[in-house]
Amino acid sequence: MTIKKEAIAEWFMGLQDRICAGLEAEDGQGKFHQDMWERPEGGGGRTRIIQGQLIEKGGVNFSAVHGPMPEKISSALKLKAGHFFATGVSIVLHPISPMVPIIHMNVRYFEMDNGTWWFGGGIDLTPHYVFPEDARFFHQSLKTVCDKHNKDYYPRFKQWADDYFYVRHRKETRGIGGIFFDRLSNNDGFSQADRFAYVKDVGEAFLPIYTHLLRSNKDKPYGKQESDWQRVRRGRYVEFNLVWDKGTRFGLDTDGRTESILMSLPPQANWLYNHQPAEGSAERETLSQLKKGINWV
Amino acid sequence: MTIKKEAIAEWFMGLQDRICAGLEAEDGQGKFHQDMWERPEGGGGRTRIIQGQLIEKGGVNFSAVHGPMPEKISSALKLKAGHFFATGVSIVLHPISPMVPIIHMNVRYFEMDNGTWWFGGGIDLTPHYVFPEDARFFHQSLKTVCDKHNKDYYPRFKQWADDYFYVRHRKETRGIGGIFFDRLSNNDGFSQADRFAYVKDVGEAFLPIYTHLLRSNKDKPYGKQESDWQRVRRGRYVEFNLVWDKGTRFGLDTDGRTESILMSLPPQANWLYNHQPAEGSAERETLSQLKKGINWV
Repeated sequence: MTIKKEAIAEWFMGLQDRICAGLEAEDGQGKFHQDMWERPEGGGGRTRIIQGQLIEKGGVNFSAVHGPMPEKISSALKLKAGHFFATGVSIVLHPISPMVPIIHMNVRYFEMDNGTWWFGGGIDLTPHYVFPEDARFFHQSLKTVCDKHNKDYYPRFKQWADDYFYVRHRKETRGIGGIFFDRLSNNDGFSQADRFAYVKDVGEAFLPIYTHLLRSNKDKPYGKQESDWQRVRRGRYVEFNLVWDKGTRFGLDTDGRTESILMSLPPQANWLYNHQPAEGSAERETLSQLKKGINWV
Repeated sequence: MTIKKEAIAEWFMGLQDRICAGLEAEDGQGKFHQDMWERPEGGGGRTRIIQGQLIEKGGVNFSAVHGPMPEKISSALKLKAGHFFATGVSIVLHPISPMVPIIHMNVRYFEMDNGTWWFGGGIDLTPHYVFPEDARFFHQSLKTVCDKHNKDYYPRFKQWADDYFYVRHRKETRGIGGIFFDRLSNNDGFSQADRFAYVKDVGEAFLPIYTHLLRSNKDKPYGKQESDWQRVRRGRYVEFNLVWDKGTRFGLDTDGRTESILMSLPPQANWLYNHQPAEGSAERETLSQLKKGINWV
């Protein structure tokens, strides 16, 4: 561990600042509201929430927590008891327009006092309507970031995202995937500096990617049908996060700060019994794209 | 097992019919839509959904499934492999008016080919606004049903409901509780006939209880503030069902029929970041009642 954990946390805080400033500028109206919180056992975070004219509800959270490892965490991560340190930035943005996709990013670093450390994270996109040109742009952007560091990263982490962001009880993916990675450590010839450089590039890729997707879709017309569909899709987002997302369940199960964890939930979601979009509709077409293994680049 | 499992399933089907007829009459407009479904490994069900002028979205489901015990189920229930049979009625009603409570009932019977059997179930109430007279009526009605069979039932099953319907990450109960019981078998001097008689009385209590609560609250005035609060409370209902409810998670995890399981989710739910009702408001008063151990009778 040549890079100190404090320096990594510091960098994440700066990333949070840059992303918040960029999103405020892009939204043009909403301002982030910040809640500072502390964890009784050590550390805390800065939860930032925006409600704007383009982003209906968005959270950009930073946290850096430490202390004796809770037993639930050590058994879940298959680690021996000891002191841990965990820091990261987590983002979920729910746009007002159903033509603009929901986006999620997480970058994180974990370290134990016995020397174990790793990075994790990812970015994935959940369009209410899948536009192939956006999907290609999104995946190509992530591939470019990955390829700069290792040619194996994009194919591995793309498949990992397909497998992770899967709503099993619906037999559909949450969206069009992206990249997901965990436990990137000093294996396979990588140093801590290599891994951190990659995670930094992933973090910095978020703002230009979402800015592009916002700008190219925010003026597309839509009506009640599209907003209704958006709320159904948001319901699926809730289902994934509460039923399958390991991070969310883990946080709720280990007494994390509930309001920070559940900032990922949409402002409004609808559940219609057995809703089936009409044959040939744009909604049906989107459903057909919510599956694993689509190669967008 | 002096009472045949088919006879119990038959009785549950009749209960479903009576409750559906009663709810249609009470709603005055909505009619149940029925979906019959089959389980590839054996059995199936009748899912019935109503959208009416008092009930915004309600499900009254019957199922009777059987076959070789899936490994996930036998390990979760700590049972040896074998053939199982499970039947029951499950109800969740989401009313349009925030002054009318959400109600849930489940009555079920489980049997193994090695002779193991048990009943389970319960009724619990989730008011958007807690009215003490309703809470007293509700708990007194359940106590009357319980006391007829055993003086220990109500106190035990009331506490079981308090513990079960607990939204741990919010540190609040889902609603004002009710009764919850599981694995009632031929122990403590009870026969299968005794247990079945009790479950029948619980099942038959549902309609008069909810009819009374509908009639006494449906004409109470409300506005946007109350409807907004209703959607926040529905969000909590979603959180409980998807994060903590063992039945829901179990169903989703073992490839149950998703649309039948998730009929319990509300038509619409909202998530506001860190929503805190104003000091002295009716909403704040309701929150103060969402805790374990309140003695309503």
